[in-house]
Amino acid sequence: MNIQLALDRMSIDEAIYMAQKVRCHVDWIEVGTSLIKEFGVDSIKRLRAAFPDKTIVADIKTNDNAKYEFELCFNAGADVATVMGTAPEATIRTCMETAKRYNKQVMIDLLNIADEKIESLVKYDQAYLCAHISKDQQEIDGESASLFKLPKSIAQSRKLAVAGGINVVTLENLVKADPYVVIVGSAITKADHPEAAAKAMKDYILEHSQIKGA
Amino acid sequence: MNIQLALDRMSIDEAIYMAQKVRCHVDWIEVGTSLIKEFGVDSIKRLRAAFPDKTIVADIKTNDNAKYEFELCFNAGADVATVMGTAPEATIRTCMETAKRYNKQVMIDLLNIADEKIESLVKYDQAYLCAHISKDQQEIDGESASLFKLPKSIAQSRKLAVAGGINVVTLENLVKADPYVVIVGSAITKADHPEAAAKAMKDYILEHSQIKGA
Repeated sequence: MNIQLALDRMSIDEAIYMAQKVRCHVDWIEVGTSLIKEFGVDSIKRLRAAFPDKTIVADIKTNDNAKYEFELCFNAGADVATVMGTAPEATIRTCMETAKRYNKQVMIDLLNIADEKIESLVKYDQAYLCAHISKDQQEIDGESASLFKLPKSIAQSRKLAVAGGINVVTLENLVKADPYVVIVGSAITKADHPEAAAKAMKDYILEHSQIKGA
Repeated sequence: MNIQLALDRMSIDEAIYMAQKVRCHVDWIEVGTSLIKEFGVDSIKRLRAAFPDKTIVADIKTNDNAKYEFELCFNAGADVATVMGTAPEATIRTCMETAKRYNKQVMIDLLNIADEKIESLVKYDQAYLCAHISKDQQEIDGESASLFKLPKSIAQSRKLAVAGGINVVTLENLVKADPYVVIVGSAITKADHPEAAAKAMKDYILEHSQIKGA
């Protein structure tokens, strides 16, 4: 399991400061959707520049206009960009093609899509598939990613990512699935001691996961 | 029918320049998703400032984090903000609540959702429902909004919007449905003479639509 640090609802300076604090204990750095929508692609460029050796994920959550949005992300320095699994087939296909052309990666966000639809996405075996319980579902409906059942079709994926309310306690429930990436936001960024929180998660993963950080 | 001018894939300066050219012939001005993702909420603020008397639509296409994203839009001066119909129920509900608190409007984007799901959205009768064939669907799969069949449940909506490949020719197919808003992008912005293109559409609407511009 790799830890992807999600940076949301803060300024770009705060995002860089937070990521600097915990950089030794996280593997990937995500420029959150809120950073992109609030500050534009400058947010991606500045995090890329601050962390030249990290994998940078642009959580742009594309729904349409795939070529333009993915080129924005990759030209700004992102290694991975995200597309909604609910987007039209033409959009997801174009994301895959654009990423291939740039030698970059796609993460398909499985937020709020039916299992049958997820199965139609398994064919994109070059993409990360991100099982996702959203912030709004957690805060408003009390759901958590640590408890949800992964559809069989993707549970064995070697490119599985999981997001939503993951912390050092709920992490235990994810060890069996052992996803390639766990996406962690407020459990680190809102902790009293972000570095200690990130270290505790990383130590747990080093001890229990079969997939080593990359 | 009102014309909503969609501004996408250009700089903020170009967007303001384009909108100035055609302002007499369009009713609403949309800050396109690509402008928001490329330049951040500054794009909304600058179009608001340039057009104090127009209805400004922020096409933020929210999938999650509804309160934060909608507050960004409304604080930047938007009158209407968009949420994906495919987003979780909790997200759409929160968009409605946030808009109500600000005395602003929500447009629900019906891109790529099944008719049954659309029917579950009809209850949000304060929201504009936007039947939408996306740019990628048009360009890659050759679809157009002027030909698609609106589900009966929303065809009679008084707050219907329609988007996707609409121009002065395809507009004719929409007169029967007579939506409250038609969203037009490249048929105006990429025309050799944007002002003439916008005027032709507006003249057609003034002659044929029962719904007068607002």
